[in-house]
Amino acid sequence: MFTISLGSRVRKSPFFEATVKAGVRNFSVYNHMLMPTGYGDPQAEYWRLINAVAIWDVAIERQVEIRGPDADHLAQALVPRDLSNCRIGQGKYAPLCDHAGRLINDPVLLKLEACRYWLSLADSDILLWARAVAAERQFAVEVFEPDVSPLAIQGPKAQAVARDLFGDWINDIRFFGFRQTDLDGIPLLLARSGWSKQGGFELYLQDGSRGEELWNKVWEAGQRYAMGPGTPNAQERVESALLSFRSDTDDDCNPLEVGLERYLDLAAPAEYIGKSALQEIARQGPRRRRVGLLLDTQPMTPCQQPWPVSYNGQPVGTVSSAVWSPRLEHNIALALLNIEAASPGTAVDIQSPERILSAEVTDLPFI
Amino acid sequence: MFTISLGSRVRKSPFFEATVKAGVRNFSVYNHMLMPTGYGDPQAEYWRLINAVAIWDVAIERQVEIRGPDADHLAQALVPRDLSNCRIGQGKYAPLCDHAGRLINDPVLLKLEACRYWLSLADSDILLWARAVAAERQFAVEVFEPDVSPLAIQGPKAQAVARDLFGDWINDIRFFGFRQTDLDGIPLLLARSGWSKQGGFELYLQDGSRGEELWNKVWEAGQRYAMGPGTPNAQERVESALLSFRSDTDDDCNPLEVGLERYLDLAAPAEYIGKSALQEIARQGPRRRRVGLLLDTQPMTPCQQPWPVSYNGQPVGTVSSAVWSPRLEHNIALALLNIEAASPGTAVDIQSPERILSAEVTDLPFI
Repeated sequence: MFTISLGSRVRKSPFFEATVKAGVRNFSVYNHMLMPTGYGDPQAEYWRLINAVAIWDVAIERQVEIRGPDADHLAQALVPRDLSNCRIGQGKYAPLCDHAGRLINDPVLLKLEACRYWLSLADSDILLWARAVAAERQFAVEVFEPDVSPLAIQGPKAQAVARDLFGDWINDIRFFGFRQTDLDGIPLLLARSGWSKQGGFELYLQDGSRGEELWNKVWEAGQRYAMGPGTPNAQERVESALLSFRSDTDDDCNPLEVGLERYLDLAAPAEYIGKSALQEIARQGPRRRRVGLLLDTQPMTPCQQPWPVSYNGQPVGTVSSAVWSPRLEHNIALALLNIEAASPGTAVDIQSPERILSAEVTDLPFI
Repeated sequence: MFTISLGSRVRKSPFFEATVKAGVRNFSVYNHMLMPTGYGDPQAEYWRLINAVAIWDVAIERQVEIRGPDADHLAQALVPRDLSNCRIGQGKYAPLCDHAGRLINDPVLLKLEACRYWLSLADSDILLWARAVAAERQFAVEVFEPDVSPLAIQGPKAQAVARDLFGDWINDIRFFGFRQTDLDGIPLLLARSGWSKQGGFELYLQDGSRGEELWNKVWEAGQRYAMGPGTPNAQERVESALLSFRSDTDDDCNPLEVGLERYLDLAAPAEYIGKSALQEIARQGPRRRRVGLLLDTQPMTPCQQPWPVSYNGQPVGTVSSAVWSPRLEHNIALALLNIEAASPGTAVDIQSPERILSAEVTDLPFI
């Protein structure tokens, strides 16, 4: 148990004071900002997400805004998908790659209006990446971080909370779709999205001075649906096999290794960074695969660092996340393994800090 | 007091186990890695740095290696200094800027050999930045993070510890100079550098599996000089006015605002990113200045977030760090202020969370 130091270098979220009042106990740092990671009762937080609705401070999903005459050109250069058919109000999950096809982030791209986009980021400095590409290509764009901080409501009752707050029109929003709106004058973008498979919305607050006000309104509306505090949930996300960029990936990882083929438009005429490298990887087939592992052990605490995996005595990769699954009543893990050990049914050994664990490779997602 | 969550996304240093055994209590996250920030006795840690020698895990100073036929071209493109006279074995402090002259990191550039460099980084993903520039310009270079983790010894007795460990030749290393060597077979680069003004060395470990072994050897050699554990020290660095990138800077900050003019070669023929923007800023004069503030208050805990500063009732900037100075026996702070409030002797008000503090602008460094 170590204490996290607070200081000016690591920013606080606009919802920070609200999370403190709600009893936040644990933090990590993500995109140079404090990220709440627990309120002291992991089981209650898990079942709240599965059965009711949780409110999450995810302001750490920072935005990069791209705006100006060449915004379409820059967005298309950065995103390995065909954006020619991207509509205003549509979000697209986008595994950003560098010129060698390495995964460098997996944001959602939001098309806000003609020549205006947000990239809603995982944990890397895509602001620098996008500015470098824009400047080197002399694109006429502004690239900056706007005053935008998402607040998520996740779980089966999130729909009801959103309807009570905003009205029946929210039923028309499709997955990753969004609309600009406000809540009693608090400007926000409402998107059907979030880092769980339990359904829900993200409220992209557009005035950092009104974080506590927004949190309180959402909290109040959620009380009749048993809303309580939560955070991106390790157990649920492993069960659902959502990618955690930087946990499940290393510097050399490409999107085909981690199961993101369907988010790449490799055959489209659109030109983007990394396209030829990704086409070559697709031709040869990836050398590694992200897989599930079923572990034969008692309930355990989540792993705190990568665990080496071996197959027939040879190292074949690492476990990135291992958790007890309350719904499967089984220990499960995510691993990136060499292709020869990645077929379902393969028996592998895991070197945990205490001892060797036996495990079996399985398909994803678990649930 | 909040607990920091441990997991695969935030890497551990090769010295992590050694710091735990030495009693580390507090962490932050820096370059996606756990950074020790305290061992539970701030005053002992401060005076150890001032009077004796401290051992610091600064593996979070990650390296970007640039290697290959165009390495000189890429290094010169990234660094706003004339590298034509840079010698092998020489380090140069380098305020990296983007095309608009904004400060994006302040590493030390180390020239390892012909066509081979390291950038020893502050907290931003310069790996992405350097790869973008290299690829967009089609430079023939490799850009990657090598297995390198610095361990620092800082304080007036660091010289004696280094001499006992390595021999008298270390007297010949000039500030920011370095030499490749080893310690009983542990490969490392020894540099006269470190993030304090108390003097010392950084041992750039080049085999991550041997962190605890290196720590123990250095620790043992340090015992006759009263060595103990420490971390980059907030009080000493404010007294010395060392720049903390991202604490003392914001996204729009340029190196002239924070006193780094002398590390820019604006008139040299060398071409680098941001040169014309920096020349224009120099012509017009910066609009803000990093200054010191003397505060009239009792001893206080370091500030945990930026504090607004006003002058004649108008907002003029923010305090980034405020600490009690044990040597000055005075509260001191660093602030970035609009030029009209940045002259020594100016009286300003600081909005701390509890109350308004009166302060006077002063020159840097404090000591």
